[in-house]
Amino acid sequence: MTQKAFQDYYPDQLAHCYGCGRLNEHGLQIKSYWDGDEAVCIFQPKPYHTAIPGYVYGGLIASLIDCHSTGTASAASYRAQGREMDTEPALRFLTASLHVDYVRPTPLGVPLEVRARVKEIKGRKVVIGATLSASGEVCARGEVVTVQMPEHMAQ
Amino acid sequence: MTQKAFQDYYPDQLAHCYGCGRLNEHGLQIKSYWDGDEAVCIFQPKPYHTAIPGYVYGGLIASLIDCHSTGTASAASYRAQGREMDTEPALRFLTASLHVDYVRPTPLGVPLEVRARVKEIKGRKVVIGATLSASGEVCARGEVVTVQMPEHMAQ
Repeated sequence: MTQKAFQDYYPDQLAHCYGCGRLNEHGLQIKSYWDGDEAVCIFQPKPYHTAIPGYVYGGLIASLIDCHSTGTASAASYRAQGREMDTEPALRFLTASLHVDYVRPTPLGVPLEVRARVKEIKGRKVVIGATLSASGEVCARGEVVTVQMPEHMAQ
Repeated sequence: MTQKAFQDYYPDQLAHCYGCGRLNEHGLQIKSYWDGDEAVCIFQPKPYHTAIPGYVYGGLIASLIDCHSTGTASAASYRAQGREMDTEPALRFLTASLHVDYVRPTPLGVPLEVRARVKEIKGRKVVIGATLSASGEVCARGEVVTVQMPEHMAQ
């Protein structure tokens, strides 16, 4: 995709997150994009992101769902306000709660597709539903309750 | 502590987990120990395990709670059977669901203490409640539903 990812719009001081910060050289650097009303993120785990041999580590799955969901919450809030993501003030979201159901073991070695959609936007709170799939099969489902970052932290 | 950690008893083929495998050189290699009826794990995040600057990445918090809880489920099952952890057959647990409530931002730079206790043991299912604290303050609470690994995977 040639469009900019949600994370490419984060202000520099908020771009150090281990999961999604483009400036964290040790991190996962996930990238999220709109695909209609859903947001999608494709991630290729490293061979060492293993649980038992041959399967993806559950903590990585939780991390992908978490960061993709906070990114989606941010992008959805700009959309709801009719604003572009490069406009001020920056809208960034923190995770209040994270729930992941591991539906089946996630095979290691193929790209993972995380899809997120908005379940609720109300005030400063955005609730996101997400799935994580491998080779077209849903391996995990998540729900993330996010809250807009206070302005003094986001600027 | 001089006692062996739960994870030191895992069979070699199950010791590659990114979160808790002693044989995963890229991983977190957490260590869990009994402290009475609770299990405790002390973990020092790396400087790059950041969310926003100064605070710990939520995905790492979820990972610590997840792996410490599956380890506690394993140790608790041996206890319930009156067995030592170095006896066969090996009892290892997979995560069925993970829930984390982020109570307050977790400061980066201090050791984190994860405490877990058994909420329920029933058949092959063990439910674990966990807290993650920094400098004595609870920053996150978790609940992990774990299921005993099928014998053909655990041996």
